[in-house]
Amino acid sequence: MPRFKAVIEYDGTDFHGFQRQASGRTVQGEIEAALARMNAGRAVTVYGAGRTDSGVHARGQVVAFDLAWRHGTRVLLRALNANLARDVAARAVEQVADGFHPRFAARSRRYEYRIYNARIRSPAYERAAWHVWPPLDVDAMRAAARALVGEHDFASFGAAPDGKSNTVRTVYRAQWDVTEPLVVFEIAANAFLYHMVRSIVGSLRQVGHGELSQEQFTQRLAAADRSQAGPLAPPNGLTLVEVIFED
Amino acid sequence: MPRFKAVIEYDGTDFHGFQRQASGRTVQGEIEAALARMNAGRAVTVYGAGRTDSGVHARGQVVAFDLAWRHGTRVLLRALNANLARDVAARAVEQVADGFHPRFAARSRRYEYRIYNARIRSPAYERAAWHVWPPLDVDAMRAAARALVGEHDFASFGAAPDGKSNTVRTVYRAQWDVTEPLVVFEIAANAFLYHMVRSIVGSLRQVGHGELSQEQFTQRLAAADRSQAGPLAPPNGLTLVEVIFED
Repeated sequence: MPRFKAVIEYDGTDFHGFQRQASGRTVQGEIEAALARMNAGRAVTVYGAGRTDSGVHARGQVVAFDLAWRHGTRVLLRALNANLARDVAARAVEQVADGFHPRFAARSRRYEYRIYNARIRSPAYERAAWHVWPPLDVDAMRAAARALVGEHDFASFGAAPDGKSNTVRTVYRAQWDVTEPLVVFEIAANAFLYHMVRSIVGSLRQVGHGELSQEQFTQRLAAADRSQAGPLAPPNGLTLVEVIFED
Repeated sequence: MPRFKAVIEYDGTDFHGFQRQASGRTVQGEIEAALARMNAGRAVTVYGAGRTDSGVHARGQVVAFDLAWRHGTRVLLRALNANLARDVAARAVEQVADGFHPRFAARSRRYEYRIYNARIRSPAYERAAWHVWPPLDVDAMRAAARALVGEHDFASFGAAPDGKSNTVRTVYRAQWDVTEPLVVFEIAANAFLYHMVRSIVGSLRQVGHGELSQEQFTQRLAAADRSQAGPLAPPNGLTLVEVIFED
């Protein structure tokens, strides 16, 4: 049976995260249900590149699945989108080698965290940005974020998702951009710990409000100790933007 | 009792429109419930500048209400936002003259209609843009829209909201802007008929796809006849941006 890879976008607000659960609507469960309908009711298993928490969004989640499909990827893409709920969509579909598994094949991931930095909360940004006030010192947040780049033990900012002890990750980019009224954090790494981006943003928000100095932020990272963790930013600001594979 | 004016933003997706109804969640009902809680449970009536349909959004709806409030407008704004649900917010509050009624005092209104012009629908734009494909000929839509500016009988594009026969309105601006991946229509008029913006956008979408010529669009407007109406664009693309009053 051919294996397919699909790039998936979703608004995570009304999902209990990506991963299938005994109860509760999940992205994986939604895609599996759509594919089963396209497969004469026979179950299809979907493998994801990464698990996103409840409320976290994606523009570039990647999944793989096996499906007996004879009408080409263009029709597959259209059929999949016709069968998916309005808050999830497939951006692209292609056939891949049988052994392809997005989680193991992924070489790096890129996330974006959006902060709505304004006095009054905005319903238009409610689902996909963290409302923060007073004004953030973005230069201080930029300076602190530089310490993240490179190979570090990120134990202060999250746990290994597989329960193993290795909390060393390599961050390729960590930068803040201002596009009024949003302050946006972009971070790319080979892989991420559980809660890692939200934990980093929670601490950098403290830097932006002068509650934590750049030096204290660097010390928090260097401590490599989960008991040193700062506050966790809420899930709604976070989007999995891209999963990158080897050519 | 002092009268207050408030500028209101909302995501209309989960509301049955602005106007209070016997059943169903409405923006007016939500604001009135919040004000009643701030008024020791006594009912407060809210007057709006315009009724928006179910699913239509606002960044600059304007309401007025009477409230015995002694803590200043800054605290009023904060208390109101603390009492409103996440999909509605007050952007500003000020005290106004006793006789102020936003619907009668308004001199013009400005709406925006967002089209998401891309092959594949996007969950991120689902709530606040109309997904349209294939690519639109925006230059043709711009040319056709020019016919709207000025005083015209807009009967082909809507009914008078009060049931009266006067369907003459003055459009001050009607323009299309492209900000990828969005194609955005901005229209300002002294007042609007019921369904007027959605009806105009429905016809201009036909122009953008070559289903209606610029000449046919102009004829549709000149007919001033509701039976000549084209298709109605869906509500989710529409936002009431601003209500303008005389100084």
